[in-house]
Amino acid sequence: MLGAGATAAAAAAMAHDGASGVEQGALPGTESHPFYGEHQAGISTPPQDHLVFTSFDVTARTPVELQLVLAKWSAAMAELTSGDPVGKVEPARANAVPGDTGEADGMGPNGLTLTLGFGPSLFDGRFGLEPFKPAGFGPLPAMAGESLDPAMTGGDLCIQACANDPQVAYHAVRNLARMARTSVKTRWTVLGFGRASAGANQSTPRNLMGFKDGTRNITTGEDFAQHVWVGDEAGQPWMAGGSYLVARKIHMMIETWDEDPINDQQSIFGRSKQEGAPLSGTREHDVPDFHAAAAGGDAPAIPADSHIALAAHENNGGTKILRRGYNFTDGLDAVGRLDAGLMFLSFQRDPEQFVSLQRRLGASDRLNEYIRHVGSGVFAVPGGLPAAGSYYGKEFFTK
Amino acid sequence: MLGAGATAAAAAAMAHDGASGVEQGALPGTESHPFYGEHQAGISTPPQDHLVFTSFDVTARTPVELQLVLAKWSAAMAELTSGDPVGKVEPARANAVPGDTGEADGMGPNGLTLTLGFGPSLFDGRFGLEPFKPAGFGPLPAMAGESLDPAMTGGDLCIQACANDPQVAYHAVRNLARMARTSVKTRWTVLGFGRASAGANQSTPRNLMGFKDGTRNITTGEDFAQHVWVGDEAGQPWMAGGSYLVARKIHMMIETWDEDPINDQQSIFGRSKQEGAPLSGTREHDVPDFHAAAAGGDAPAIPADSHIALAAHENNGGTKILRRGYNFTDGLDAVGRLDAGLMFLSFQRDPEQFVSLQRRLGASDRLNEYIRHVGSGVFAVPGGLPAAGSYYGKEFFTK
Repeated sequence: MLGAGATAAAAAAMAHDGASGVEQGALPGTESHPFYGEHQAGISTPPQDHLVFTSFDVTARTPVELQLVLAKWSAAMAELTSGDPVGKVEPARANAVPGDTGEADGMGPNGLTLTLGFGPSLFDGRFGLEPFKPAGFGPLPAMAGESLDPAMTGGDLCIQACANDPQVAYHAVRNLARMARTSVKTRWTVLGFGRASAGANQSTPRNLMGFKDGTRNITTGEDFAQHVWVGDEAGQPWMAGGSYLVARKIHMMIETWDEDPINDQQSIFGRSKQEGAPLSGTREHDVPDFHAAAAGGDAPAIPADSHIALAAHENNGGTKILRRGYNFTDGLDAVGRLDAGLMFLSFQRDPEQFVSLQRRLGASDRLNEYIRHVGSGVFAVPGGLPAAGSYYGKEFFTK
Repeated sequence: MLGAGATAAAAAAMAHDGASGVEQGALPGTESHPFYGEHQAGISTPPQDHLVFTSFDVTARTPVELQLVLAKWSAAMAELTSGDPVGKVEPARANAVPGDTGEADGMGPNGLTLTLGFGPSLFDGRFGLEPFKPAGFGPLPAMAGESLDPAMTGGDLCIQACANDPQVAYHAVRNLARMARTSVKTRWTVLGFGRASAGANQSTPRNLMGFKDGTRNITTGEDFAQHVWVGDEAGQPWMAGGSYLVARKIHMMIETWDEDPINDQQSIFGRSKQEGAPLSGTREHDVPDFHAAAAGGDAPAIPADSHIALAAHENNGGTKILRRGYNFTDGLDAVGRLDAGLMFLSFQRDPEQFVSLQRRLGASDRLNEYIRHVGSGVFAVPGGLPAAGSYYGKEFFTK
């Protein structure tokens, strides 16, 4: 393995060298995930390095127009996630408008996944889809700690594009929006990063507060079956094998946080900053002991109002969600402060899993002093497509 | 080499696998560039995958305050480009505000370079620096094709942070801004991408118009010496081995461009879209022949008003500049269109090299219909620091 490591290091160095050969440079782009299957990709897929999340309003006036968008998108998603351009390349027709905008040409699939979701408003009656609305599906309730901007909230449709290259993810969403431009309008979009390059001492990525994020995430098939994948409880066959996506754009008060002493930061999270260990232990993956007392006292080592204590499944009747968030930065805000934070994305079998956790966090999480939820959406994510020729939402239009 | 390639492919696949070992995952982060040397890094350095460009206003009221910023920054830049956190880690002082914000902890240098520049306004007299202003250095003249937003123009200082991971680049600028917060204020910032993962058929990255960008860039030491590095002509010893950085935030009218037929797009650039070959040839690196006639006619194969014809050194008295730009996207603009384009960065021995080229392009480039320069800056980039203990601008304060 040492030999293999050294060879890979040399290859990696060559790939980053401007003079590198094409063979070496081509390696990172070739990873791909199957598009067809029981579940949509981009949920249990190990998180890629980059995110483009986009929510859309449907401006189509007829069900047929919406049907066409969903059919075209499904076919194009299969092409894009294979690393192919959208549509057939027809070099003979020089006078044609290009089918694909071209900026990801030759870059390979780069681990691209495209995950489609339907917002509650899609089922409001404009397209006759009331009978297909999953049981109990509606907008998230108002919650403490949020100050939502309507321009970054909701949407009839969403696409979560994730890839190991930002240009590949952006290209996919741009081309999907483009082919549907007469029927859908982009409502809000967030570019995320932060799953990039797990370093020597970092298997878990860090959020922009400097803490590891995602240490206790869902990983086992059993947990996915119990907490993430929808069965028949939605009352809609198209949701079998699907999930619910909650998106929260969380603004961080970076400058304020940066002035907080490190022991206070650690007691807010309930973990040490450098190692990421629960304050009851010494290593990142030590199981938190919420009953352990702090050294030299009776107070718990992990404060009861710390983030991990409030969010832990041990303290929430076993509730777990799959977190798949990304860091974002939008430059500066109107008064020159850093406009940055976490694009929180979670997948769960029932949106209520998120709501119950967030209600607890919003009521007493000490982190609330440093964060504000500014964007929000909830989407029903249909199960995967079985094969070419099928498309998302097909069941809606085949009465 | 086939064996090595296969091993590297396996390593790359493992590195992108969530279950990968730490050893494999650690490889990409370890690349580093020396901080001390004749020239600042980030100019002749092969372009990394990600950019954070930030311009600052100096709010300090005394030369000593400015001196302190430059000294602290120089020391911190050496730490950051080595992959170290800012300042000493002092775990014993649990009540201290952290010296480093922590989000790049354990990620390694990731090819980070930090390149510092001084804007013309720094020499305006507030700090007694008039005697140190390079000969002829001033703001760029107004030019055709620009519609500059003052909020994205100018600045007393700039930092170009480039790295193979966006979080590493962002972390560096965030921490430099943080340690100087009482003396400098961020004026504008642009996050760029687009140097990532050169794919199987793509050694040259593509811009968001889908065309390869940078095919004929400066690469030889001879060209750097003649066109990029400043000698003694600036009349300032601190500029020897330095350069001038021109930054232009170029907005692309993406939706309009996407409706243009491919042969028109190709005649605007003067290159084929897929291969990137000049229209007088068949391969990307064929030398453009501006006298060759198009097939079946007398018109030149490469239109005289195409982008490459206007910009070519053959048609500009030998003028060359080093381009080091990145694609950017800021989401949506106020009316819901894609807010995206090119963060053009060029280095040259004299800003006049850029001005003369841009005057020609602005006057007759057919690309102007699809782009608009919205941000701008010019910065004198001092030569490299010789060793630890030296700092940028030291000459200004040692009378």
